[in-house]
Amino acid sequence: MKPIFRYLGDFRWDGVPVEAYKSEGAHFREVTRQLLFGRDAGLATELRYFEIGARGYTTLERHQHTHAVMIVRGAGSALVGSEIFELRPFDLVRVPPMTWHQLRSAAEDALGFLCLVDADRDRPLRPTDGELEALRRQPEVAAFIRI
Amino acid sequence: MKPIFRYLGDFRWDGVPVEAYKSEGAHFREVTRQLLFGRDAGLATELRYFEIGARGYTTLERHQHTHAVMIVRGAGSALVGSEIFELRPFDLVRVPPMTWHQLRSAAEDALGFLCLVDADRDRPLRPTDGELEALRRQPEVAAFIRI
Repeated sequence: MKPIFRYLGDFRWDGVPVEAYKSEGAHFREVTRQLLFGRDAGLATELRYFEIGARGYTTLERHQHTHAVMIVRGAGSALVGSEIFELRPFDLVRVPPMTWHQLRSAAEDALGFLCLVDADRDRPLRPTDGELEALRRQPEVAAFIRI
Repeated sequence: MKPIFRYLGDFRWDGVPVEAYKSEGAHFREVTRQLLFGRDAGLATELRYFEIGARGYTTLERHQHTHAVMIVRGAGSALVGSEIFELRPFDLVRVPPMTWHQLRSAAEDALGFLCLVDADRDRPLRPTDGELEALRRQPEVAAFIRI
């Protein structure tokens, strides 16, 4: 295990492949994923770097495991529960268990962020029709979400 | 638990206190610590931000738990095992179990870095006289370390 993974600029690292955010689905747009520290680093956690291209978004979902996020690039916004937050580099975001969340980049800018999760974690759940209906009862949430 | 901790600039965050690196000791210099995500974030890990002022250094130590580090500010260098690496923002560093390590800032610049550790972890060990003697058999390590 080499001790150093060099930063190459433009949020790419030597020896860290740029992967698809998820293997399939039409419920996200323009998202890439890089695993910076995985199970082989010997931690109970994984640190991933995600980047959402301009006008992109992650999946609207929730799960038992917690997300701990640090924005590192660009600009965007997040739904966490029923609140929407504007995001700038180095802001910290916590997504508690079973809380609906979605991140979006700004129209003209990418959004890059670090996301910490436990290595052992449950699979995300997408909203049912009934849950979507409930989410959409708040007009600002209805206007924000992309599915 | 509020979902957002705003970045205030200059590597300070709203609601995150700047703490001492360690409660006591003369084996480090000019280091501060901020706990960005702790046990209350609901993860099996902690994310800390450390900053070493110009000409400062962390403790030369080792332990069973792993460090996963991302440089985010300034410039400096690290001893990991018996190798010395120059560090620049967004470089990634892994410190394997029971590996001697020390980070130093550049003479004219601070070094700021994120450090991930398991929430449950062992206490660091400092070198014995015999271990120090062994470390100093390599001239570049002898020249690097501060104790």
